[in-house]
Amino acid sequence: MVSLKRCAINTATLGHRESLDVTLERIARAGFGGVAPWRHEVEALGAQAVARQLRALQLTVTGYCRSTYLTSATPADRRASIDSNIAALHDAAELGARCFVLVVGGVSANGRDLAGARAQVDEGIARLLDEARKLNMPLAIEPLHPMYAADRSVVNTIGQALAICERIAPDDPSMLGIAIDVYHCWWDPLLSASIAAAGCARRILAYHVCDWHADTKDMLMDRGMMGDGVIDLAGFRREMEDAGYDGMMEVEIFSRDRWWKVAPDEVLAVCAQRLQSVC
Amino acid sequence: MVSLKRCAINTATLGHRESLDVTLERIARAGFGGVAPWRHEVEALGAQAVARQLRALQLTVTGYCRSTYLTSATPADRRASIDSNIAALHDAAELGARCFVLVVGGVSANGRDLAGARAQVDEGIARLLDEARKLNMPLAIEPLHPMYAADRSVVNTIGQALAICERIAPDDPSMLGIAIDVYHCWWDPLLSASIAAAGCARRILAYHVCDWHADTKDMLMDRGMMGDGVIDLAGFRREMEDAGYDGMMEVEIFSRDRWWKVAPDEVLAVCAQRLQSVC
Repeated sequence: MVSLKRCAINTATLGHRESLDVTLERIARAGFGGVAPWRHEVEALGAQAVARQLRALQLTVTGYCRSTYLTSATPADRRASIDSNIAALHDAAELGARCFVLVVGGVSANGRDLAGARAQVDEGIARLLDEARKLNMPLAIEPLHPMYAADRSVVNTIGQALAICERIAPDDPSMLGIAIDVYHCWWDPLLSASIAAAGCARRILAYHVCDWHADTKDMLMDRGMMGDGVIDLAGFRREMEDAGYDGMMEVEIFSRDRWWKVAPDEVLAVCAQRLQSVC
Repeated sequence: MVSLKRCAINTATLGHRESLDVTLERIARAGFGGVAPWRHEVEALGAQAVARQLRALQLTVTGYCRSTYLTSATPADRRASIDSNIAALHDAAELGARCFVLVVGGVSANGRDLAGARAQVDEGIARLLDEARKLNMPLAIEPLHPMYAADRSVVNTIGQALAICERIAPDDPSMLGIAIDVYHCWWDPLLSASIAAAGCARRILAYHVCDWHADTKDMLMDRGMMGDGVIDLAGFRREMEDAGYDGMMEVEIFSRDRWWKVAPDEVLAVCAQRLQSVC
């Protein structure tokens, strides 16, 4: 049974209904060892104040959520996004985050040019990496489910993310890696091989769990609590561990009509129970 | 500009609002050379009668839609599905279809055992192939978008479908191949290589077009008309042709709230115009 000290809560799981300081208190009180906060929450309080509270509560930041999109039809937009992400990298460093999570943007921002959008992603990551190195803040590319290729991310498999890492930072796994989320990757016929390859390359920087409802109603807001869907979470975790991943397990559930309507402490209690029985 | 004689309409595009004989008349009158009908439509009129009308209208059947699912928790269900599919293969042969389309079923029918569900698919296809050979009716595995892995298909990429073909019918590309639908496959980072490999192996049996809306509202019923989404359809077709595909292009659009509310002849007119300007 996994210790909650090795588990983290992505604050999206609680629906961003309260100020981050309240949320952090709840997460620590429930016994979790980590948290993944979002930029708008941190920026509302200031990174320094949040960092102080994190230290007082002894919470690890498993990842800082997240980059603005790197794909766009205009160079000016892409530059603005890089600037925004560099500012966030500084906050990530202030928080002592284990990584800064990259959600890279979809093709629609660049029309129909998928290869071009993917080239923009490479270029954007390369630029961010310079700054990330100065701050010693690892970048974690999060491949998103292919159903988001139009509007959120043109990086859609672990294998594809790993290839980007090897192209851009071939000798530097500590600074450019991958955030693996079961929701995005569970279906992949190449999953086992991809996890093994990413682990072998020491590129796995984060591990996110939730579940996929068999009768998913909404492409974004209907993620399931661990155990309520079709993902073999215990099997997934074994593959992660076999690949050498020994970091924290982070719960990230977007659930507008279900869990975001449940009292935060109850959501945390269910997360704790499921992490220790299902994952 | 593609000739409409080399284009086909999947009857789902018209929303199954009329009897198949009426639909076939419309499709032929609009100038299309082919059609892909669904089983419930054919079974309502009888395959022999439909076949007579198809011959009279000189319509090619680009594919017969479609298999019942091959995944299930019980052997009895799987046997029943095989029996149902064998009956459909006979109808496909009666219609002179170019292929029988296999949509293989999701994992949820088998709990959380994805590898087990995929093994069931291999087993089911191997059993169907014996009968398909007797009837000289090619089977076309249609990889579905990964968002359907839970409920509709555990075959989710062209590469995965090709591997199944090579495992089950290594020396027989004429009897076991792949139906490639842009909607399911456009996002795949390995798309170009996979199309080339499938073409080289002479496994591409059908080509389906529609479009992916950037702001897709529904996982099943919000497919776009060609040109209304983010897929580079002209580029996709070039890759298909470069891979040696010289078959028909079939329009398949599930669109409950948009195109299924438009008069069938108008839908066909828009399909014709977009096929000749966008695809």
